[in-house]
Amino acid sequence: MLKLYYSPDSCARAAQIALEEAGAVYDAFPMSLPAGDQRKPDYLAINPKGRVPALVTDHGVLTESLAILAYLGRLYPDSAIGLPADAFAQAEIDAFNSYLATTLHVAHAHKGRGSRWVDDPAAIEAMKRKVPETVGACFELIESTLLLGPWVMGERFTICDPYLFVFSEWMPGDGVDPARFPKVQAHTAAMRERPAVQRVEAMRKAST
Amino acid sequence: MLKLYYSPDSCARAAQIALEEAGAVYDAFPMSLPAGDQRKPDYLAINPKGRVPALVTDHGVLTESLAILAYLGRLYPDSAIGLPADAFAQAEIDAFNSYLATTLHVAHAHKGRGSRWVDDPAAIEAMKRKVPETVGACFELIESTLLLGPWVMGERFTICDPYLFVFSEWMPGDGVDPARFPKVQAHTAAMRERPAVQRVEAMRKAST
Repeated sequence: MLKLYYSPDSCARAAQIALEEAGAVYDAFPMSLPAGDQRKPDYLAINPKGRVPALVTDHGVLTESLAILAYLGRLYPDSAIGLPADAFAQAEIDAFNSYLATTLHVAHAHKGRGSRWVDDPAAIEAMKRKVPETVGACFELIESTLLLGPWVMGERFTICDPYLFVFSEWMPGDGVDPARFPKVQAHTAAMRERPAVQRVEAMRKAST
Repeated sequence: MLKLYYSPDSCARAAQIALEEAGAVYDAFPMSLPAGDQRKPDYLAINPKGRVPALVTDHGVLTESLAILAYLGRLYPDSAIGLPADAFAQAEIDAFNSYLATTLHVAHAHKGRGSRWVDDPAAIEAMKRKVPETVGACFELIESTLLLGPWVMGERFTICDPYLFVFSEWMPGDGVDPARFPKVQAHTAAMRERPAVQRVEAMRKAST
């Protein structure tokens, strides 16, 4: 049985949505990042990085959203998130999700996680001020080039869609007006209509 | 014919080493990041992100090191970098490379690319001061947990090895003493012995 350790307010939501889209049977373990659940010894024994998500499988523990999403795409090939067989199509999915993880998520993290990279409180405040610009620039590229529509990869729903959705919903909190990006807005609206997303939202409400 | 756009002094070296390990036939286009080659119109037409690497294939352009490395592992399954068929083994490779891209590379980038995330010159200097700590913490986890040895995934060489090698060689420049990490040091030494790495090094010397 798969076990997902996640926080409803973190990027780990993407993995949870993917599990629901796949129709997977799994146990969900919501964690509170503000309470420091991710740094408690029991969890560090599962994921020594002290981050979420972590997916416990029969073969071992997987961390990193990118890896978990792609693994689920391989584990459930006939589901909504099944990866295409073609190597180049897989690589395009990898590339999009890698951009979210290495560029968009990192830009976003400078708002609330600046102490990862700097100690000086004034520098942490300076980082926060640039987040609307850096997150906005990522969504400009997504809107103009990367998001084919209606889904990220065009007509086919993929593991890119839950991942983008998480960051799109964070946009207002990052000081970026979603109205600047009509294609992204339509994508967010379409995601909210999906039963899998609605189940995850219901679980979030039930856990808080 | 594959075409790799890269900089010999960037993480794109990992993709070049992977191409050499695969025995691929490809055209290499070295670019100068200090000269701003990556922001010239000809290159932006290939990769609108203005970053390296970019791999031009018969199917389209791929960006992001993670995606390019995994693609090459699928394109050359019987080579030294061929991906294992097992989905969980693939996911472990994805997870390791994702950690390098999203955590180690990002920590390193706060030394020389701080202006991506902040405008204040004092904050940029403050970022630089923390790099030895953050990069050092990544290598502590790699040394203690992630690097199985002799290669990242144990006895089998994978696309994780060229990628780790690039960051290991940057360690002294990041203010971290490689002698703290004997397993990583042995990995770096073993990588330097490989003919593919030596060919890439010869191309670097020839291009500068």
